[in-house]
Amino acid sequence: MSSFTATVDRMPALRARIAAAPHEHRVLTGERPTGPLHLGHLAGSIVERVRLQRSGVDVLVVLADYQVITDRETAERVGEHVRGAVLDLLAAGLDPDRTTIFTHSAVPALNQLMLPFLSLVSEAELHRNPTVKAELAASGRALSGLLLTYPVHQAADILFCKADLVPVGKDNLPHVELTRTIARRFAERYAPVFRVPEPMVTDAPEIPGLDGRKMSKSYGNAIVLGMTADETAALIRRTPTDPQRRITFDPQARPGVSGLVSTVALCSGRTPEEVAEQIGDGGAGLLKKTATEAVNTHLAAHRARRAELAREPGLVESVLARGNAAANAIADTTLDQVRDAMGMRYPSATPCAG
Amino acid sequence: MSSFTATVDRMPALRARIAAAPHEHRVLTGERPTGPLHLGHLAGSIVERVRLQRSGVDVLVVLADYQVITDRETAERVGEHVRGAVLDLLAAGLDPDRTTIFTHSAVPALNQLMLPFLSLVSEAELHRNPTVKAELAASGRALSGLLLTYPVHQAADILFCKADLVPVGKDNLPHVELTRTIARRFAERYAPVFRVPEPMVTDAPEIPGLDGRKMSKSYGNAIVLGMTADETAALIRRTPTDPQRRITFDPQARPGVSGLVSTVALCSGRTPEEVAEQIGDGGAGLLKKTATEAVNTHLAAHRARRAELAREPGLVESVLARGNAAANAIADTTLDQVRDAMGMRYPSATPCAG
Repeated sequence: MSSFTATVDRMPALRARIAAAPHEHRVLTGERPTGPLHLGHLAGSIVERVRLQRSGVDVLVVLADYQVITDRETAERVGEHVRGAVLDLLAAGLDPDRTTIFTHSAVPALNQLMLPFLSLVSEAELHRNPTVKAELAASGRALSGLLLTYPVHQAADILFCKADLVPVGKDNLPHVELTRTIARRFAERYAPVFRVPEPMVTDAPEIPGLDGRKMSKSYGNAIVLGMTADETAALIRRTPTDPQRRITFDPQARPGVSGLVSTVALCSGRTPEEVAEQIGDGGAGLLKKTATEAVNTHLAAHRARRAELAREPGLVESVLARGNAAANAIADTTLDQVRDAMGMRYPSATPCAG
Repeated sequence: MSSFTATVDRMPALRARIAAAPHEHRVLTGERPTGPLHLGHLAGSIVERVRLQRSGVDVLVVLADYQVITDRETAERVGEHVRGAVLDLLAAGLDPDRTTIFTHSAVPALNQLMLPFLSLVSEAELHRNPTVKAELAASGRALSGLLLTYPVHQAADILFCKADLVPVGKDNLPHVELTRTIARRFAERYAPVFRVPEPMVTDAPEIPGLDGRKMSKSYGNAIVLGMTADETAALIRRTPTDPQRRITFDPQARPGVSGLVSTVALCSGRTPEEVAEQIGDGGAGLLKKTATEAVNTHLAAHRARRAELAREPGLVESVLARGNAAANAIADTTLDQVRDAMGMRYPSATPCAG
């Protein structure tokens, strides 16, 4: 049994524990602000965060801006993507009175944890990480020091706030495993400062892009949450389909058609087979019309709220100011505990004490 | 011509530039607090720092406490070694009104620079570092992530304060080269935030330990600055020599005898040949007696000042509090410039602004 399957099997028991005492739990989750958030983010993780927040769990969302440069050479537009992400998170229902939204580049004490954590893992362990391996293969370039060590930085994101729950997809499970290893080794070597977090697998199905591939801004197949209805229609119109009139759900043989069918299914709460059956012999034209209406209807409320929030002067700034201040307070406390555990507590060790 | 030789050749011109405008220069230098400081540290680097300080150069001394765990699993006694180092630095003549003495674990914004810097170097470049290679070979253990990335952390130590001068031995030159590379690449990719520092080779000869090997606390061949005169005598008495009565200076064939001869030479301002000639047929007994007297005389004033400083309540704490506060102020300013350059400036990005 794979460790992912084992994690899935543990989920009902974990959900029951959370429901029994939601206020005892803290979730760390986040985004890499490499582009605008899209329908895949909303359905795959944001909806789950809102549910957790409403259940009373303490939720922290990291906008992992330094991770933008793990596999690209520029941080261009990162500020714009951070701003957009905050708007989407708020529009989706995250409440800054209850949920901490922060950028990790604004939290020095969190980043400092990289140093002791790096001493607890070997180079071989870093190389075994599947994401590091895959990114290395995909980029075809020299492995940067930041990409190699990024699972350790992700451990810092999770451990600094003593989150006990980390929502993950299958790809991220090895990161949580390494994070658990670091928490345990720190306890063995110094003191049990950190909680050993558990992975949480979301119930949401993976959402394919319009063309059937993984939804990704860089493939041009992503329904961006902040798009207008017209932009959405234009994007769907451009999606490559096939000339066969009868619409079926067959992701292998008909990726474009099936991507559109999945999108309609997601946005209308039906199964892909039901959607395909309904379109029948309507062909790609009817499918695209249906998809455009389904997406724009599904996202109408989100987009209206998002536009309204975007008009509030200083809103994003104030949400980040609060979130970053809260994250810094947590990180400073944790770093002081780490310093005590390691025997590195000196006068003026905290930046504000001088 | 090796790059070390080239650096040595550039030194007279560099010294002339420093002498012409000392206040335009900043030196970053430091210690890894793995044990008490010894005669090798005093003669090899501390004396040079005091000279630079007196000439009007701005000197920062980092006590690199995180680097204690690059090649060992414990940070035990690090606080004690930091305290001892501060006492030795002050006793040697460093003035906390003019020189900043700080522990890097107390400066989060400095440590945060690891993240952008790691993105600017490849894993292959880290592996090419001779110290990383040597430490790996010596430790015989799995390479830790911290040891692999420690040249990048050292770059953060140097660049955060925009030092333009870095005193180095032959072994450290590749670190300065990587630091220069990081400064240049950051400028190319983002903005010229950092100065590109120059290595400075000290005039001081390398001081062997009592047994002729490199002076090192772990070899038990080091004259620790904080030892008493009696402890010094006992240590010298235990040094292995050879039965040949005639004392000569022959480091290859007679390491123990020659280590003692070198020590007397260093402490009495003579050449090893002069010292050997003077002892003549006096044998190891006279050599050891002479060495004990020479060392204890040479260190008497340092030890008296050190003991006096150690009795001042709160002195070390106040020196570190001032140094750490000063280093944090510098690091916070630099990190803000880095954030601006990378487009990652958000509200409350500095820990104290919340």
